[in-house]
Order: sequence, then C-alpha cells, then structure tokens
Amino acid sequence: MNFTLPLITDIHDPQLATQLQQVWNQKTKPLGSLGALEALGQQMGLIQKTLKPQLIQPQLLVFAGDHGLAAQGVSAYPSDVTWQMVENFLAGGAAVSVLARQHGLALQVVDAGVAHAFAPRAGLIQRKVAMGTADASKGPAMTAVQCQQALQAGCDLVSSLPGNAVLLGEMGIGNTSSAALLMARLTNEPLTACMGRGTGLDDAGLLRKQQVLQAVLQRHADATEPLQALAALGGFEVAMMVGACLQAACERRVVVVDGFIAGAAVLVAAQLCPAVLGYCVFAHCSAEQGHRLMLDHLARSAASAWGLSRVGPLLNLGLRLGEGSGAALAWPLVQSSASLLCDMASFESAGVSNKCEG
Amino acid sequence: MNFTLPLITDIHDPQLATQLQQVWNQKTKPLGSLGALEALGQQMGLIQKTLKPQLIQPQLLVFAGDHGLAAQGVSAYPSDVTWQMVENFLAGGAAVSVLARQHGLALQVVDAGVAHAFAPRAGLIQRKVAMGTADASKGPAMTAVQCQQALQAGCDLVSSLPGNAVLLGEMGIGNTSSAALLMARLTNEPLTACMGRGTGLDDAGLLRKQQVLQAVLQRHADATEPLQALAALGGFEVAMMVGACLQAACERRVVVVDGFIAGAAVLVAAQLCPAVLGYCVFAHCSAEQGHRLMLDHLARSAASAWGLSRVGPLLNLGLRLGEGSGAALAWPLVQSSASLLCDMASFESAGVSNKCEG
Repeated sequence: MNFTLPLITDIHDPQLATQLQQVWNQKTKPLGSLGALEALGQQMGLIQKTLKPQLIQPQLLVFAGDHGLAAQGVSAYPSDVTWQMVENFLAGGAAVSVLARQHGLALQVVDAGVAHAFAPRAGLIQRKVAMGTADASKGPAMTAVQCQQALQAGCDLVSSLPGNAVLLGEMGIGNTSSAALLMARLTNEPLTACMGRGTGLDDAGLLRKQQVLQAVLQRHADATEPLQALAALGGFEVAMMVGACLQAACERRVVVVDGFIAGAAVLVAAQLCPAVLGYCVFAHCSAEQGHRLMLDHLARSAASAWGLSRVGPLLNLGLRLGEGSGAALAWPLVQSSASLLCDMASFESAGVSNKCEG
Repeated sequence: MNFTLPLITDIHDPQLATQLQQVWNQKTKPLGSLGALEALGQQMGLIQKTLKPQLIQPQLLVFAGDHGLAAQGVSAYPSDVTWQMVENFLAGGAAVSVLARQHGLALQVVDAGVAHAFAPRAGLIQRKVAMGTADASKGPAMTAVQCQQALQAGCDLVSSLPGNAVLLGEMGIGNTSSAALLMARLTNEPLTACMGRGTGLDDAGLLRKQQVLQAVLQRHADATEPLQALAALGGFEVAMMVGACLQAACERRVVVVDGFIAGAAVLVAAQLCPAVLGYCVFAHCSAEQGHRLMLDHLARSAASAWGLSRVGPLLNLGLRLGEGSGAALAWPLVQSSASLLCDMASFESAGVSNKCEG
C-alpha cells in the first residue's frame, strides 16, 4: 500500500477575506465586537468560498487505539480502559456521548487499533490495524506499512461521510505519551515542555513517564521526517486522525480539532502539508501541560501558511478529557459564528444609525 | 414606593458540595478532567439543592435604557441607536436574536427607560421609568424614587417568569460609562482601570470620556452607599438588572451574567447582599478594559461569601457587544455542565476500570 497525500488547496484568498470582513463590518454591532467569532466566520467563509458559510451534518469521529508503550507504566489507567470506554461511548454514557446528543452531532467510534475484539454494531466503525501498537521503547510503534494503512483508513473514512464539518477526538490509554513524543520530535521543544500528567499521574508517575519518553525519543533519534516520526512514536488512532484531517481539508470541510492528542495529529499533518491548517478550528486549550505550547506552534505555522490572524483556541476551561469532548463543547460557538455572519441584520437593513463620524 | 431587598439564602452547603463532587468523581473520566464545568455543575446543584440540576425554560432578558450622560459625547454611537437596536432585537436581526434562536432561549426586551415611545408588541416588556436618565454630569442620573421603581420592576419582572434560569443582558448607548462609574465607586479602583472604549471610541474619544467620568465621580463624591451610587451614576437598565438579579437569587434561579454592564449591576447587587453571587454564572470576559478587573473583584467577593472555587468566566473570546450576546453564547456550556453531571455513566454502571492504585 502506498499512501498518497491528498491535494489540499490553500484557503488564502485576500479578496474574499476582505469581502467577508466587510460583511461583518456592516452587521448591527460595533466593529470587531464579536471578537474571535469574526475571525472564525471569515475562516469558514474562506473554507467554503462563500460569504454565507453553512455547517451541514457535522460528524464527530472518536478514533480509539491502544499503545504498547502503556506497558511501561506511562498512564494512571490500565489499557483495558480503552476498550471499556469504547463500549461506554457506544452505550451513550461517556462525556462525548452526552455532548453529541446535546448538540445533534453524529457520533461514530473508530476502532483504529484497540487491543480487544468488538462485536459489530451501529456507531462502531471497524478499521483495526492491529491489537494495539508495539512498545515504542523497544522498537517502532508501528511498521511503515501499518502507518500507511492507518493514514489511508482515515482518508477513506472521511471520504465516505456526509456533511461539511468533521470533529476529531480520540481515546487510547497511553496516547498523551505518543502525542508528547511527536510534539517534541516535530517542534524540537524540550520533552519536559511537551508532556504532562495525562489522565492524572502523580509526581512519581510523571517522573517515570518522563524517563520512559526520554529513552523512547533517543531510541528513535533517526525518525525525524513526519511519517517516520509518526510510525516510530505514534498510535493507530493518531495516524488515522492525520489521514482524516488531510482528507477533510482536501474536501474543504471544516475540521474541529479537540485537544492535545488530536493536536499532535494536526502537527504531523501540517508538516506534510501546511495548507491543512487553514481548515482547522482549535476547540480548546486543555489543562495538559504542553498543549498551550503546541497551539502556539500551530498558530505560528498557520499564520505563516495563510496569513490570517490567529483563530482560537475557542475554549479555555481546564478540560483534559479527550474523546472529542472539547470539540463537542466548542461546536455551538462554531455554529454561532456561521449563523451570526449569515443571519444578522446590517445597519442598512435594520435602519440602525452607524458610528458617529468626526 | 419602598424597595424591599429580597431575602436571599446563601447557597453554601458543605455536605451537598461534597456529595456533588463525589458524583463527578464517580463519572467515567479522569478526576477533575471536566475542569470549570465541574465547579459549575456543583454550583448549580447547590443552587437547586439537588445532585441532579436541571435547567428549565431559560429566560433571556435584554434591559434597555438611555443615558443623559451620552450628551457629553462619551459614546461612539448616537443615543438613537438604543431604540433602533430595540427594534432590531424585536425584528430578530441582532446578534442576541440570532443566538437566542440557535439555543431556544426565550428572548424578551425590557424598555427600562429608552428615550423613545415604542408601539406595544410581542417580546417587548414596557417598564419605562422615564425617557432616559438625567445627565449625571449635572446631577444624579435618577431620583431615589426612580431608582426604587426600577429595582422593583426588575424584581417583579423576574417573579413573573417561568423556568429556573435567567440570562441578563442590556442595551443602552452610554452605559459602559455608567458601569465604569459604578465600578470605580464600589471597588475603589482608579477610574482609568475601570473604563474602556465601549462601542469603539478612538484615542481622543477615550480621553474625553475619561475627563467627563472623572468629573462625574467628583460631583457625586458623597454617593458612596450602593443604592446612592446606583441612583447617582447608574442607568434604568442597570438598576432593573440589579433588581432582576436579586429576585432571581431569592427564587434560587441560575443567573447567567453577560458582560461589563451586567457585571456592574451584579457589583451593586452583591454589595446589597453578597449571597447573590452564589447564583451568578459569569458568561465571559469581554474585551472592554475594566471587565477582567471587575470579574476579579466579583470572584474574590464570591469566594469570601460562599467559599467555593471560582467559576468562570466561561468564555474569553474578545467579545464587546453586550445585548446578552455573551450570556447566550455561554449558555450551551451551562447546559452541558448540568447534562454531564446528570447523564454521564459512572465507572461502576459502565463497567470501566478506575485509576490504577499504587
């Protein structure tokens, strides 16, 4: 199998961007007074090449996978929690299940590589690459072929979805380790700035995680290209999110990125194709140490790639749950931005006096 | 008329607070991983005296009033914009109209004292105290009797509403001046730390506003008690929000507070009765200079009044629009917090392994 990078067009369009800003400026409100929601509306207009962006049939995908590295004690929870939480998503009891119901989001769980055999059922998409990755402290987490397979599965999956917006979330015990490793490798930031307590390590656990991850980074010192790093350090759910994100951008869908692990997938995708960042809306800044710095890197790349002012993260609520819960919580704001841009009256249409001149 | 302060019971209840935290801790998620939404859920549980808070028929009230002080050139927009925006709210074209539709919020506009005669119609509540306040640079903005009338109208209005949650917003050209004056007087912070550009003053306008407000503060140096300050410096829409907030707390409703001007009303209410803060959810921190400092004051008062950790502001999107738009944008997060607390599965009910011990 050979993964072919989807063709992604830069959303950059100065003329349309100006027109979109003019639409905002004519709305019955002080100039710029909708803050970040104005930049977000402009971004969605550029993505959809329209002055009236609309969000249709949003799809929330939760990619799940297990990590061989979890055997090294890098998480506060046992690996079994991955499959148990998949069952919880499907039964409707997880945070993301509750939020998807609240906001009318179509929720599907993707088995990217959980170490468990699931019975088929509605809401579960079977794309298992293997029963979890290999232990990255002993060798690459996945083979190059597995990595390509996961990327392609993510692409194919998004291609098959209706609508024009995708929300990316994940589940996988040990995957804050994978995300921290990818971040350290791809941003060259020190590992300690890229890693945190995950689901809740204590001080001793954090120190252990740091020692394990440092050794993993050294072991894979030669994995410097994005796809090499992804195979050596990543997870199946991370690789599948990379593919999903690239394909969604290729199809000009709005991509709502959840937290630290989904962000790491976007880091990989952006190194493969910086234009992907134009399609990404960052839902929130989590409490996981490293996420703020990751978002800063992504914002700088986005600014240099498509020149618009930074959008997001939309929320900053100290969340650190994953599952796509942050993306689901931010979704109403994304919707509001589009609705306000389309549906608010203008000064002229409403007969409201504009700013005093002079 | 003599305004009687509604009796407000402190939400403080250590035993119920502990039980609510235990409910969160048994949910299928890492401890504390829903961040601010956990504290918010706890607050709502304490307000409603239940482990399963539910939000019913939320009422969004936009209080509108004009300000005599606007004649001194303290706003970027002419006073006519107040009544024109009321028409826009009622016609469905304003930001808050769009957001209320999106979230199923019952929106009503209260004419607290707009300098315009409105034809009666659905959605408009007539409680006009006068055709705008007097010019506070020349005397008190309102008489003591008018102030009591506005407070009582706010109380009566909330008493008549269905549901158990109220969202407070406002409209009034010149009312960031009124809010800044109240904040400076009631917090003793320097005026320059309490005021900003409002709807968009340029540097010269900002300097003029500062000079005008400084003179107003000096003129009313003796108005130091909360209700004296409210009469001297406030607006009818501000006074009515004070009454609405107090009555809502008296009836144990959740009060979602919009931005800088609604926040100033809460400052007044909290000096009359600190327990009111237990019922307030602060929707967002606006871009208006002074709002962050105001929220810090309110948070400190709340912490000393009812001892719980600070909740919110929920959003920080650089909004500075008023109208209740920030409260409406934050509303889905308030709903999510209650839904997650009520509807998420527990580790036990979902059969998910809890944190590794040792």
